[in-house]
Amino acid sequence: MNVTIRGRTSHFRTVAFDAEQNRVQLIEQRLLPHEFKMVATPDFRATARAIQDMIVRGAGAIGAAAAYGLAQGARAFRGRDLERFHRHVEAVYQTLKVARPTAVDPVNAMNQARITMKAGETVEEQQALALAAAEEFANHDVQHCEDIGRHGAKLIRSGMKVLTHCNAGWLAFVDIGSATAPMYAAQAQGKKFHVYCDETRPRSQGATLTAWELGQQGISHQIIADNAAGHLMQRGEIDLVIVGSDRTLGRTGEVANKIGTYTKAVLAKRHGIPFYVAIPLSTIDWNLRSGFKIPIEERHEDEVLGAWGITSRGRREYVRVANPGSSAFNAGFDVTPAELITGIITPAGIVKPKDLWAKRRQLGHAS
Amino acid sequence: MNVTIRGRTSHFRTVAFDAEQNRVQLIEQRLLPHEFKMVATPDFRATARAIQDMIVRGAGAIGAAAAYGLAQGARAFRGRDLERFHRHVEAVYQTLKVARPTAVDPVNAMNQARITMKAGETVEEQQALALAAAEEFANHDVQHCEDIGRHGAKLIRSGMKVLTHCNAGWLAFVDIGSATAPMYAAQAQGKKFHVYCDETRPRSQGATLTAWELGQQGISHQIIADNAAGHLMQRGEIDLVIVGSDRTLGRTGEVANKIGTYTKAVLAKRHGIPFYVAIPLSTIDWNLRSGFKIPIEERHEDEVLGAWGITSRGRREYVRVANPGSSAFNAGFDVTPAELITGIITPAGIVKPKDLWAKRRQLGHAS
Repeated sequence: MNVTIRGRTSHFRTVAFDAEQNRVQLIEQRLLPHEFKMVATPDFRATARAIQDMIVRGAGAIGAAAAYGLAQGARAFRGRDLERFHRHVEAVYQTLKVARPTAVDPVNAMNQARITMKAGETVEEQQALALAAAEEFANHDVQHCEDIGRHGAKLIRSGMKVLTHCNAGWLAFVDIGSATAPMYAAQAQGKKFHVYCDETRPRSQGATLTAWELGQQGISHQIIADNAAGHLMQRGEIDLVIVGSDRTLGRTGEVANKIGTYTKAVLAKRHGIPFYVAIPLSTIDWNLRSGFKIPIEERHEDEVLGAWGITSRGRREYVRVANPGSSAFNAGFDVTPAELITGIITPAGIVKPKDLWAKRRQLGHAS
Repeated sequence: MNVTIRGRTSHFRTVAFDAEQNRVQLIEQRLLPHEFKMVATPDFRATARAIQDMIVRGAGAIGAAAAYGLAQGARAFRGRDLERFHRHVEAVYQTLKVARPTAVDPVNAMNQARITMKAGETVEEQQALALAAAEEFANHDVQHCEDIGRHGAKLIRSGMKVLTHCNAGWLAFVDIGSATAPMYAAQAQGKKFHVYCDETRPRSQGATLTAWELGQQGISHQIIADNAAGHLMQRGEIDLVIVGSDRTLGRTGEVANKIGTYTKAVLAKRHGIPFYVAIPLSTIDWNLRSGFKIPIEERHEDEVLGAWGITSRGRREYVRVANPGSSAFNAGFDVTPAELITGIITPAGIVKPKDLWAKRRQLGHAS
């Protein structure tokens, strides 16, 4: 998407590749929203560190970063010995894989690249194919988000007030995003609407990343405390909710997403407000049979006990807000049942959560 | 309640009076939870400033502070001329009244003191009666909170997990508190239970004041992000919700309280979890006929856009968390309808919200 820095607007992808320099280009997301900076990793180890240290985060974005990292590592190999080359690529693969061990996109993206590479008969050909596969993964990611936007934009009418939670925006993908895709597409169609961003404690991705994204695209928005969504719904101030998902169960229609999503879905149901979840197909889990089996990550209590921000002297600091003697419980995700979800916006169209399984072939289920 | 500082435990009221020095003694609440400090105001103007600057906050606490401030001002008068004395007292009254113009408790407490004073025939007698009236207001406030605790403690059983929102604790009253009163009473009865404190963004009174209070009393507790209550309810981790109220409508049973209360009530209803509101009788509004007529204060957006806390170097600072270009919507309160409330815990017993009007005589309605 476009980013405007000191009055100059340029287009950026969250993850890109500089073939000449053999570098992966990433937006340094840890500095956002207070500073916009691109970093270029000099080698695949640096790319793995960038994934590990969360310079880049979000399913699609780290998938692309890993695929580019694999190509970067493969292209750094000097020599013609295919066997040695394959041992080298295997080491690159392992390094990138362990950078974010629970994520599925990096592994899927790199496995596809390794299959694609096999068509090459020389090291040079395989190096070229590795990069082609990474570019294809990235372009598919963008295409899927555009498709989500095309389907989802139909839900947004001019004058609407839309609520979103956390960041399922272009920073989490190669470009465009999932939950934000319908907003960007509706804006491109000339629709005028207003977005309420839940601040999304404890990590505040709504107040930081989503608000930054929407601000850069010139979309009218306000940040609200997570406590305020119910009040706004009660007063008729929210017409539509769109969120993303970390994992959607294809068999049950349950959606795991950032903590607080379930609460917003319960409130939307009470007020008869449509509640949509926008997802790329890669986040559908076709195996699990119950949302209660989704492991819920418990994160460090310091996230709840304080906040990161910029001091009056411009320094980025963590402040302890809570009572010094108290501890916190910090679940990172919750699970929203299908009955609270109006529809799932996928690249293949909008599907009722209970229909995911029946439509599994159109939705990319292998079997 | 008891406060332990460097291993030494002492009993404090939030607001008290030093008759010898003619000073109002207040807990400096703006420093909590990071520092516990008592301040003593040298004259009624300093007491008014303490109310205005929120050194003391909470309905019962500022009522008592104003009543003590009136006595303090009256007692500072030198002379025997009753007419001049009354002009002086009127000036004291006005100064204290405008310190927090929308609050009802200071005005009620001071009006009662002025009525009580009339029984005195000399300046000296009226000065003594002003102080007696202030002490009576403070003692009644404590008694009412004890009564709330006695009735509410029956709801808490050992092993329960109780959720509370914001701070309706002893710091908001002269002592004991409203929502916390059943917890303190249950603890005194030897019951063991666990409290989840919503952090209560944007001002974080749950993470700061409630957590500090519960910690001082040795009650097992954890702070959670406001987003986490729904998840905990879904997992069967919350058995009971008790909150306070800024205004309860006697005619409809609707409850105005800190933003986010309504959301917790909606969640509790969905999960069949009892939802109680603990209130002193003074917060019942017998006039308003609809919760939609309760004015909802919109507060400064900086509360949502950042947070106050202690830096790593021990300095209290505000950090800007949100995207620098974005604005926020910041409603301070919301309104919970009667149908979501299991019961109102009053000093006169537990009443169903729809029965408040029928029982208005027992609940102190004048007519």
